[in-house]
Amino acid sequence: MKKSLIIGVMGGGTATVEDTVSAYELGRLIAGQGWVLLNGGRNSGIMEASAKGAYEHGGVTVGILPDKDHHRASEYIAIPVITGMGSARNSINILSSDVVVACPGGPGTLSETALALKYDKPLIFFNFKAGYKLAGPGKPGRVHYTETAEQVIELIEILTRKRRDQIKS
Amino acid sequence: MKKSLIIGVMGGGTATVEDTVSAYELGRLIAGQGWVLLNGGRNSGIMEASAKGAYEHGGVTVGILPDKDHHRASEYIAIPVITGMGSARNSINILSSDVVVACPGGPGTLSETALALKYDKPLIFFNFKAGYKLAGPGKPGRVHYTETAEQVIELIEILTRKRRDQIKS
Amino acid sequence: MKKSLIIGVMGGGTATVEDTVSAYELGRLIAGQGWVLLNGGRNSGIMEASAKGAYEHGGVTVGILPDKDHHRASEYIAIPVITGMGSARNSINILSSDVVVACPGGPGTLSETALALKYDKPLIFFNFKAGYKLAGPGKPGRVHYTETAEQVIELIEILTRKRRDQIKS
Amino acid sequence: MKKSLIIGVMGGGTATVEDTVSAYELGRLIAGQGWVLLNGGRNSGIMEASAKGAYEHGGVTVGILPDKDHHRASEYIAIPVITGMGSARNSINILSSDVVVACPGGPGTLSETALALKYDKPLIFFNFKAGYKLAGPGKPGRVHYTETAEQVIELIEILTRKRRDQIKS
Repeated sequence: MKKSLIIGVMGGGTATVEDTVSAYELGRLIAGQGWVLLNGGRNSGIMEASAKGAYEHGGVTVGILPDKDHHRASEYIAIPVITGMGSARNSINILSSDVVVACPGGPGTLSETALALKYDKPLIFFNFKAGYKLAGPGKPGRVHYTETAEQVIELIEILTRKRRDQIKS
Repeated sequence: MKKSLIIGVMGGGTATVEDTVSAYELGRLIAGQGWVLLNGGRNSGIMEASAKGAYEHGGVTVGILPDKDHHRASEYIAIPVITGMGSARNSINILSSDVVVACPGGPGTLSETALALKYDKPLIFFNFKAGYKLAGPGKPGRVHYTETAEQVIELIEILTRKRRDQIKS
Repeated sequence: MKKSLIIGVMGGGTATVEDTVSAYELGRLIAGQGWVLLNGGRNSGIMEASAKGAYEHGGVTVGILPDKDHHRASEYIAIPVITGMGSARNSINILSSDVVVACPGGPGTLSETALALKYDKPLIFFNFKAGYKLAGPGKPGRVHYTETAEQVIELIEILTRKRRDQIKS
Repeated sequence: MKKSLIIGVMGGGTATVEDTVSAYELGRLIAGQGWVLLNGGRNSGIMEASAKGAYEHGGVTVGILPDKDHHRASEYIAIPVITGMGSARNSINILSSDVVVACPGGPGTLSETALALKYDKPLIFFNFKAGYKLAGPGKPGRVHYTETAEQVIELIEILTRKRRDQIKS
């Protein structure tokens, strides 16, 4: 397997039907680009949906689990990374992602968007309205707002040209 | 040294003069109550100011440092805990605090307020206006807003009656 | 990409020529089995050699880096997980591995073999003589000694029958 | 509370009567010196015994807990630091200690002695025979062997002259 862009997809452990469908679609499109999907790894909500979308379309899925074993890992995660660190692992999610996509979620997802700002990662909000409030502290050009999975993919392509060249070389 | 309440004071590595004075005053009052002050441990901003206020008035100060050594530790931290984990240590700051006080800060402080909501800790905003936006997801009665150090202390007294009884017994 | 066994290959950041060759060969054979190779991710010693062996033979390589960025990542790591946690990440290396192979290394590698015993993971020493001393505390049947990469692969096949069935189902 | 030396006392969650008595005595003597005792924080084995010895003689006790709450914390720990990170917190234990004392323990304690060598901390084995095997990789003058709590204290005094001057200034 060759190196590729790593797209972090953050979002809640519970999700509405609409957000679940959107996360699945995002996972499918990320796989279609040949990018790696990285998320929190659990078998519920945005994590399960985005992993399923990618896994069922040939993508590589990496889950950074808060737990100390596999019991709550999504079956659509090809590579479960078991941290045993609870929400301290949120920092790893962000550091490991070339781009961070924030889907709707609760306080855990909010903490991840804040860390994306802290670590100066490109941050794309995907219909995560609670997160929009955090945009203020973001550097110009680092925070983006999208409403469809296609928009997310287009944005990632624009934002990562340099990084993709680095990876190829 | 007997056990006591642990008050987490979060806030930025840079701070205005006004916020610096407020953080020092808060540290002084926390020491006056005989409580432990816990913060991020660095020698700048809200961390240095709150530690100094407590240290110079006989308080116990604990700093959970992101670094792998003492080089950037505040001299007013009596007990430096060296994590070498960067911002992943933010999770430890919150888990270890009986009450979390959020002073003005940037994305790192925002991530800590989000984790306080995640872990269901009593959360007191102390003039941290950016953080106010996060209040929405908080459970009723868990998120509070204050404008003076005295108000923070009064609130902590009210919020921790049960916890203080646990500690004494 | 489908799920597969994850083999943790631990070992030093510096290595003799002989140990480097052995680690490369082990990586090659792990890739040949279709297993995932997980290591510490750096561009030196056993980490670089084992990753190169797997990467150049079509394997999937995951690196759990201690650093906060990619600067010291091996170019043969397809999936760099950036922890920013220093040696605290050793715990993640072990928790995430279905089997742990300990190649020659220093204190960091020793700490990983100790954690393998702690977490009750199958542990295969591969010419790591310093590590042999730790075998005492291991549960019967959990600690093994090998001298060739082929022996390591054979042992993994025997030790993981149940786990491989779990993964397939 | 003024700054002081931080002595890390590592050891098992279960302990023989003899080792328990020795750990209590060591805690008592550390408190007598005005030093801070830091350990893993749990309510059993060497952790409970060493904390009790220090706590009952006016010492300051800091526990770096692997758990995500206080349920298994020793009542003799004045300052519980809640990491929620499992054995990944072993790294914090060592980084935070000016000197590491290794009492008898299992694989967790072994991993801590290995990290002490990794981080180049002064390491004193106190009747921990399993740990003796690890001494080989230690730099000359960094690893020491003792049989009584008094010997441990004497050694710490010798090993920390420079560090104690730093702390005072």
